[in-house]
Amino acid sequence: MTVSIHPIRGLPEIEAGDDLAGMLANAIAVAGLGPEAGDVLVVTHKVVSKAEDSVTTITDDNDYRRVVDEQAVEVLRRRGDLVIARTRHGFICANAGVDRSNTKPGTAVLLPTRPDRSAHRLRQSLSRLTGIDLPVVVTDTFGRPWRRGLVDVAIGVSGIEAILDLRGTADTHGRELRATEIAIVDEIAAAADLVMGKSAGIPAALIRGLSAPRGDGRAADLIRPASEDLFR
Amino acid sequence: MTVSIHPIRGLPEIEAGDDLAGMLANAIAVAGLGPEAGDVLVVTHKVVSKAEDSVTTITDDNDYRRVVDEQAVEVLRRRGDLVIARTRHGFICANAGVDRSNTKPGTAVLLPTRPDRSAHRLRQSLSRLTGIDLPVVVTDTFGRPWRRGLVDVAIGVSGIEAILDLRGTADTHGRELRATEIAIVDEIAAAADLVMGKSAGIPAALIRGLSAPRGDGRAADLIRPASEDLFR
Repeated sequence: MTVSIHPIRGLPEIEAGDDLAGMLANAIAVAGLGPEAGDVLVVTHKVVSKAEDSVTTITDDNDYRRVVDEQAVEVLRRRGDLVIARTRHGFICANAGVDRSNTKPGTAVLLPTRPDRSAHRLRQSLSRLTGIDLPVVVTDTFGRPWRRGLVDVAIGVSGIEAILDLRGTADTHGRELRATEIAIVDEIAAAADLVMGKSAGIPAALIRGLSAPRGDGRAADLIRPASEDLFR
Repeated sequence: MTVSIHPIRGLPEIEAGDDLAGMLANAIAVAGLGPEAGDVLVVTHKVVSKAEDSVTTITDDNDYRRVVDEQAVEVLRRRGDLVIARTRHGFICANAGVDRSNTKPGTAVLLPTRPDRSAHRLRQSLSRLTGIDLPVVVTDTFGRPWRRGLVDVAIGVSGIEAILDLRGTADTHGRELRATEIAIVDEIAAAADLVMGKSAGIPAALIRGLSAPRGDGRAADLIRPASEDLFR
């Protein structure tokens, strides 16, 4: 089955209190995309945070560092201006997710307070507006240890499994796939970024043709417990 | 622009010395996909390693551990049967990339000796066979610190930039994007896995509609130098 990834354009600059679901439903309809049953909607957290007013004012670089420290539950590493921190959600990322790009001068965007709930509410509203139960993945752009460059990952999920558990299924030689849990929503987030870009003003993408199972996954499922983590 | 991801099916079990490029060109043609200029071909390293005979026999679990230790240049962590190791290529991954799934009983598949070269040779052969200069991304499935689940990443690249460097470009508010290097080939690898799966016998995917820049990227570009790495 072919998978297609469609950019969702035409959203205005999002302000606190905006009806993001309504704007997305409209933009999807204007693009002639439906939506259709089986589609998955991917939305960058930036517009979710703006709509939810998870935005703060910052006066200067020192103030920015203060906000990062506020948003960090634990600082894992600090080098120069870069802080790798665990957020209260459990994500480990640069600057505790506080972002000064693509936002008004003098402001910084924070992560949504509860991104899984944000995804769930968007999904509920979109279902009311469109008649389609559309799984939603909210994304952010994270760095990785060991590998250069950033990739988009899922920080909020509703309506789809976060992890595809292939353990217990057989490979093509009948051998049991022992340790194969695929972070399917992270792959969906990365795929969506291929049409979203960083400065192109495309805050969402519709993915069509996925065979990913519907379910009650949450991005919180992706957080590796500290006891299982060899790199904490 | 819409991006589409097409599974490439119908390859037989690959043996050492097989003409993988010829088989892929044939499968792409049979699927009615061309290829067309601008397409990118993603291939799991499993079939590349098999064609190049980067396969070893293993008698039992102890022998498997011996092979893993052989393939490891440095062991970062060890817990039970799991070894996180750096390979001679510089990749840091589980079991130094030695894989017993989707291979004949009594064998294990190693990483290609030089995956960037493998990608380059595939691209050259496909160019001869199809008349299209088709960028090639060779993938493997890696775990990540902190996040549960595996994702596909690029371990070999030819004909495309590995990292999309947005530094110096402006965001939608005119603010310079200071530290935005996107690991575009890792996002391509993850996207391709959405149609490849792990046990479905689909070893390749064709991606159409990407705006990723052609270039001389290598997967080696993705390896973060130890001096820059906060988690070594």
